[in-house]
Amino acid sequence: MLNDKVKHELISIVGADNVQDSRASLLVYSYDATPQFQSMPDAVVAPRNTDEVAEVLKLCNEHHIPVVPRGSGTNLSAGTTPVEGGIVLLFKHMQDIVEIDEENLTVTVQPGLITLDLINAVEARGLFYPPDPSSMKISTMGGNLNENSGGLRGLKYGVTRDYVMGLEVVLPNGDIIHTGGKLAKDVAGYDLTRLFVGSEGTLGVITEATMKLVPMPETKKTILALYEDIEAAAEAVSSIIAHRIIPTTLEFLDRPTLKVVEEYAQIGLPTDIEAVLLIEQDGPQEVVDHDIEKIAALCRDNQAIRVDVAKSELEADALRTARRTALSALARLKPTTILEDATVPRSKIAEMVRAINDIAREYKVDICTFGHAGDGNLHPTCLTDVRNKEEIHRVEQAFEAIFHQAVELGGTITGEHGVGAMKSPYLHLKLGDEGIAAMKGIKQAFDPNNIMNPGKMFAKSERKRVVVHT
Amino acid sequence: MLNDKVKHELISIVGADNVQDSRASLLVYSYDATPQFQSMPDAVVAPRNTDEVAEVLKLCNEHHIPVVPRGSGTNLSAGTTPVEGGIVLLFKHMQDIVEIDEENLTVTVQPGLITLDLINAVEARGLFYPPDPSSMKISTMGGNLNENSGGLRGLKYGVTRDYVMGLEVVLPNGDIIHTGGKLAKDVAGYDLTRLFVGSEGTLGVITEATMKLVPMPETKKTILALYEDIEAAAEAVSSIIAHRIIPTTLEFLDRPTLKVVEEYAQIGLPTDIEAVLLIEQDGPQEVVDHDIEKIAALCRDNQAIRVDVAKSELEADALRTARRTALSALARLKPTTILEDATVPRSKIAEMVRAINDIAREYKVDICTFGHAGDGNLHPTCLTDVRNKEEIHRVEQAFEAIFHQAVELGGTITGEHGVGAMKSPYLHLKLGDEGIAAMKGIKQAFDPNNIMNPGKMFAKSERKRVVVHT
Repeated sequence: MLNDKVKHELISIVGADNVQDSRASLLVYSYDATPQFQSMPDAVVAPRNTDEVAEVLKLCNEHHIPVVPRGSGTNLSAGTTPVEGGIVLLFKHMQDIVEIDEENLTVTVQPGLITLDLINAVEARGLFYPPDPSSMKISTMGGNLNENSGGLRGLKYGVTRDYVMGLEVVLPNGDIIHTGGKLAKDVAGYDLTRLFVGSEGTLGVITEATMKLVPMPETKKTILALYEDIEAAAEAVSSIIAHRIIPTTLEFLDRPTLKVVEEYAQIGLPTDIEAVLLIEQDGPQEVVDHDIEKIAALCRDNQAIRVDVAKSELEADALRTARRTALSALARLKPTTILEDATVPRSKIAEMVRAINDIAREYKVDICTFGHAGDGNLHPTCLTDVRNKEEIHRVEQAFEAIFHQAVELGGTITGEHGVGAMKSPYLHLKLGDEGIAAMKGIKQAFDPNNIMNPGKMFAKSERKRVVVHT
Repeated sequence: MLNDKVKHELISIVGADNVQDSRASLLVYSYDATPQFQSMPDAVVAPRNTDEVAEVLKLCNEHHIPVVPRGSGTNLSAGTTPVEGGIVLLFKHMQDIVEIDEENLTVTVQPGLITLDLINAVEARGLFYPPDPSSMKISTMGGNLNENSGGLRGLKYGVTRDYVMGLEVVLPNGDIIHTGGKLAKDVAGYDLTRLFVGSEGTLGVITEATMKLVPMPETKKTILALYEDIEAAAEAVSSIIAHRIIPTTLEFLDRPTLKVVEEYAQIGLPTDIEAVLLIEQDGPQEVVDHDIEKIAALCRDNQAIRVDVAKSELEADALRTARRTALSALARLKPTTILEDATVPRSKIAEMVRAINDIAREYKVDICTFGHAGDGNLHPTCLTDVRNKEEIHRVEQAFEAIFHQAVELGGTITGEHGVGAMKSPYLHLKLGDEGIAAMKGIKQAFDPNNIMNPGKMFAKSERKRVVVHT
């Protein structure tokens, strides 16, 4: 609990309406979208502008109070769970589009802006912001920046990081810095911009960001390829890329995922086959026509039993939406859904899918797999029940085996969900002790009192995800 | 000078042939392509592999000996001048292409590899590595990575940073770390990959890099647009981008530059007009035809007096080569050529060109301007004579005014040449004291003994470029 002096100072900075510490409001911000993590904050604070953020950080730094910046809390790595208490920082007063610059093709946003609102606003001007995390209807840009969010269009267009041109950041000592700018080229100093992107709120608070936009693609087409064999689908993915075609989207859903998605979305997806690939290409009409034709042929060459081109944008949109609902659909089946994002080089997709299935069998757990196959970014998703301690233990072991396997194949423990509190015990698998030591040096330099989102990124112990904090 | 003990330890690590300290060999590595900077190293060391780099760094760290990693020394910011003596690290034994991976579209290289050798090797497989710094015939990949090199194709394709997927880096303490990988998505920890890119050898030594490749564009076309008015040319640049066309290359040359380039290259460039734009588009045939037609129309709408489409790849290549020779051509005219790379948002190009001309008049100095107009990355180039102290003083003042102007327009002091020793006195203009303090924290964390390329990035004093160190 905050002492009265600190509470009053917070109120004097942001106003009484913007400091909450009732049991009910603390409870609301005690968890995020990650199963099994909960921990109460001491207060919820909503600054109204950058200067107030700076004042709050200075105060917290002085009193060594943890600060957890939070968007909509859609992250899946317990990145915004206040595991060490302190203040949850909300951005409900900072959700504007500051500027759309049509000459420089940039948009400048505040952290509280909903991703889809950004996308819709720029598309209305004929411009395109490609990163499209599945949670984009509710996720905020601040969250996307701190997590370096991916999305379905990442294969062709990259991730959030690839669109950040400049940031305004408040450091733990209250300093406000500006990195980058509306500049296609800028080598003045270290790349602080990209250091903050994906740093999960552990180095400072992003209060404004200038993002790159690209011209809106002229058109797009969507196809669905059906497979009787999961590995054939995976081989098709490798084959498409190896034939020098980079589709916008190249998604994979296995049979169990298909079944629940169809039950949930009811759009006529086949449920009696082993896997589908949902593939989209955008660009100029001729290119799209040509690529889609070639992709369809490559799918057939790799044993697709059927390839359907969506007949209309309406049908295509239904397919995309169905894919985006995969997590929600799966979450209905069992009390606990644990979705992971082990990622491998795309040439290793078939091998990784095979390994996941072997591991699920070995530990006798129920794993569905879907995800961004073209990126090598799979989402093995375990349907389980946290109350069944014996099963949960096996789930833990299975995921640990999956992470090991991903790293062994040249992959990583997390492609887009982040490390947070949940995956910090596994980070050394990817970075080694030397890599983690280098990261700790950076953390120490920016945040010597460890107030910024403590308990994230760096593991304190071998604690696994299933410990519940209350 | 190194003491005998250290020298013998170096020899025991890399072999006697790979440690040089004769006066002649030290002299060769006492300067780079930057005018007016020279400083003698104590030894020149060429490790044969990553482990030897680690041993050398450990030794130097123990004895607080400066280490300056150096490729071909083509940088223009005194980034590889050993301003505090110590060891110049050469990569002549580490210049291999380790692997071209056609399934994942990556190439893995050692730091000593020449950029053009990489480009040619991947193009032979139908793959494309877009970054093309003007010095690519001689520059090394290690240099490109440390400087985050740009190039002519940066407008459409981005810079070196945008193609780095993973690095092997030796830290000053001798730790070897691996960042990233052949992964389209990876959010396991801070973005160390991009922190090292552009860090100018001040944080560690890059010993291997995995770079992203893209499919080779089907075709390309080049046009030359002639202008009687510099600002009309700049307006055409803004107009093309604002019409949602992103050409591969959008280069600008003013009249004085054109004149010397034509004298040097003799390919029939017009020399009686005020400016030309050299514009290239690549991609599928239909797209290129369509874009080039639209670009030509926009150039005419913006007062181009003539627009010529190159009739053959031979002719196009002659134009590109001529552009790349601009610096060499200018360097023949006067004893001293100082080329800068102040960069602005592309919408500010016209304003910046006007400001440069005003500043040149005000300080009575001779400035030609060419550069990557589409990126807002201009190269105002001053032809002068370092022996004329009075003129050089005015040149200094003019460039300082240019940097101020660039930052005032939302730009930066360096778009692609780096900070090095030369621009460190100006870095605070872009980053402010708070930004520099953040950078210093990172430097201190990685390199507490300040052995890595000391005297770069961080200004010790207000020393300007024209002081010669011998």
